[in-house]
Amino acid sequence: MPELRKDPIMGRWVIISTERAERPSGFGAPEKKTKEGFCPLCPGNEDKTPPEVFAYRSHGSQPDTPGWSLRVVPNKFPALRVEGDLDRRGEGIYDKMNGVGAHEVIVECEDHNDTPASISLSHFEKVLLTYRERINELCKDTRFKYVSVFRNHGEAAGASLAHPHSQLIALPVVPKRLTEELKGAREYFNYKERCVYCDIIRQEREQKVRIIGENKDFLSLAPFASRSPFESWVIPRQHRSSFEDTPESYYASLAEIFSDVLKRLNMSLGDPSYNFILHTSPGHERTNDYYHWHFEIIPRLTKVAGFEWGSGFYINPTSPEDAAELLRETLPPITEQ
Amino acid sequence: MPELRKDPIMGRWVIISTERAERPSGFGAPEKKTKEGFCPLCPGNEDKTPPEVFAYRSHGSQPDTPGWSLRVVPNKFPALRVEGDLDRRGEGIYDKMNGVGAHEVIVECEDHNDTPASISLSHFEKVLLTYRERINELCKDTRFKYVSVFRNHGEAAGASLAHPHSQLIALPVVPKRLTEELKGAREYFNYKERCVYCDIIRQEREQKVRIIGENKDFLSLAPFASRSPFESWVIPRQHRSSFEDTPESYYASLAEIFSDVLKRLNMSLGDPSYNFILHTSPGHERTNDYYHWHFEIIPRLTKVAGFEWGSGFYINPTSPEDAAELLRETLPPITEQ
Repeated sequence: MPELRKDPIMGRWVIISTERAERPSGFGAPEKKTKEGFCPLCPGNEDKTPPEVFAYRSHGSQPDTPGWSLRVVPNKFPALRVEGDLDRRGEGIYDKMNGVGAHEVIVECEDHNDTPASISLSHFEKVLLTYRERINELCKDTRFKYVSVFRNHGEAAGASLAHPHSQLIALPVVPKRLTEELKGAREYFNYKERCVYCDIIRQEREQKVRIIGENKDFLSLAPFASRSPFESWVIPRQHRSSFEDTPESYYASLAEIFSDVLKRLNMSLGDPSYNFILHTSPGHERTNDYYHWHFEIIPRLTKVAGFEWGSGFYINPTSPEDAAELLRETLPPITEQ
Repeated sequence: MPELRKDPIMGRWVIISTERAERPSGFGAPEKKTKEGFCPLCPGNEDKTPPEVFAYRSHGSQPDTPGWSLRVVPNKFPALRVEGDLDRRGEGIYDKMNGVGAHEVIVECEDHNDTPASISLSHFEKVLLTYRERINELCKDTRFKYVSVFRNHGEAAGASLAHPHSQLIALPVVPKRLTEELKGAREYFNYKERCVYCDIIRQEREQKVRIIGENKDFLSLAPFASRSPFESWVIPRQHRSSFEDTPESYYASLAEIFSDVLKRLNMSLGDPSYNFILHTSPGHERTNDYYHWHFEIIPRLTKVAGFEWGSGFYINPTSPEDAAELLRETLPPITEQ
């Protein structure tokens, strides 16, 4: 059983999950599919994954057989286990609980060689709607306090399978990073009576130097205090605290801007490895005035070195203004595409 | 001029330092010295670095010429600049200041192929005493609030030069990670009237499952909530808040335990890349009852993937108990060596 352990100084929870080390490529490069190769996420290999929990399927096709265009399955090597109670307990001065949670894989499409930037906008919209669907479903389980949706693209980003897929982890605690963002956003709101992200959007749309793209509902931008080169955010223009409460009608527009920024990163940087992660309000406070959901995209161009790791202080050799300018110039604006 | 920028939500400062991108191997692998190759840190190439600010030298040898056994020089591509005022200012809702600070390179020894685990204990003691010397010197500059000492070993750890060297960065703000540790340690002290690290040491010495090594003054251990496989700490057994106030007489003992844990990591994991970083109290509160200095060593065996990056929530596939057991068994205990 995986274990959640709390750092007694920082209050940070970590997952100790020794079963994860048994993954075929746990410490190595992502599995490449060769002619002779094998991919457990490709059509025809449905029996190589745990049974699907959600899918977009052609009419009449059976679960766990071909005929799907998108498929969600539990992770075969989950960081957390869905069964059991948390059983919070101490061990002397230390605190721990059982590693209860869900760990799912969203197989985004059939074609092994597609990417979020190459699939159609309507299909990418399905991927994003699937995130929404799974978050809403998992939030019904009161043991879970937060659902983290993320994607690792490319070897440098930690992808262990090459087939296009995202992941989600439903957690019994809110991640430290989110807790800190919520706290910072709440403090700003208490002082200003405005959402800090709404203020950022207002200033960015005036200054125009860090904006990458814009459509009717969303902005993409390089944040003022970018931690690494070409860090990019996708954020709704109007205040919205919760991704999964955002009406379905917004998702085509989200797919458009998200795909646009990924294409720009690909063209400017030559298909870089990247991570993206959804930041949204936790289930128990999903409607609020102070937090504003967004996606953060981090291309993995530099290695995080000792100083950054140990200090939480990042050294970024590329200004967000330069990054945004390059990304803007790579393609015509969305409205003209 | 590099710029320090504050994240408006998290309060985290980042360094935007575009000059760093001009480093010869800014985005690439560390420079390997070949037969025809060239290393700017090797003896004979003293004119390829900025003038030295400190050195251990054989009697009569001149600064910036051969004859040194250890040499400290300003970083040729510094993340921060030593000249000028901070000039804290706003830009709409954003906060920034000039990137004022010091960035130095501690060239640990003459031999290009040595490592901290291979040099003599007495020479490693000199390296550690040099950290102390430079921190004390730089703390005289009231613009600097914290001096971060760290080492990147190997390509995966972000080392850009192969010659053995550590680095230090004197910062005009206390890094976020340290601020959080100080806050956590202070809260624990307020509640318990004991240092949390002293309590950890007491429990670890009782449980014995996460201890790696021990000598008369120091412990090495795998922390209970390790973020990544084989994370290791070196920590004084008695309460000491400040590395640089620790009497010189302790440094031989520190070199012994530190070298021991690095040798164990090398032997168990096959010369892994690693980072280590000093955690010590900031200059303005160097004597206190709640914080306990230590070194954190992080072997870079797994890639930090999107989930970790975005959530601050780490998934560790190796339990610290297993890691400590393997490291203990690799070599006889220090007392028997």
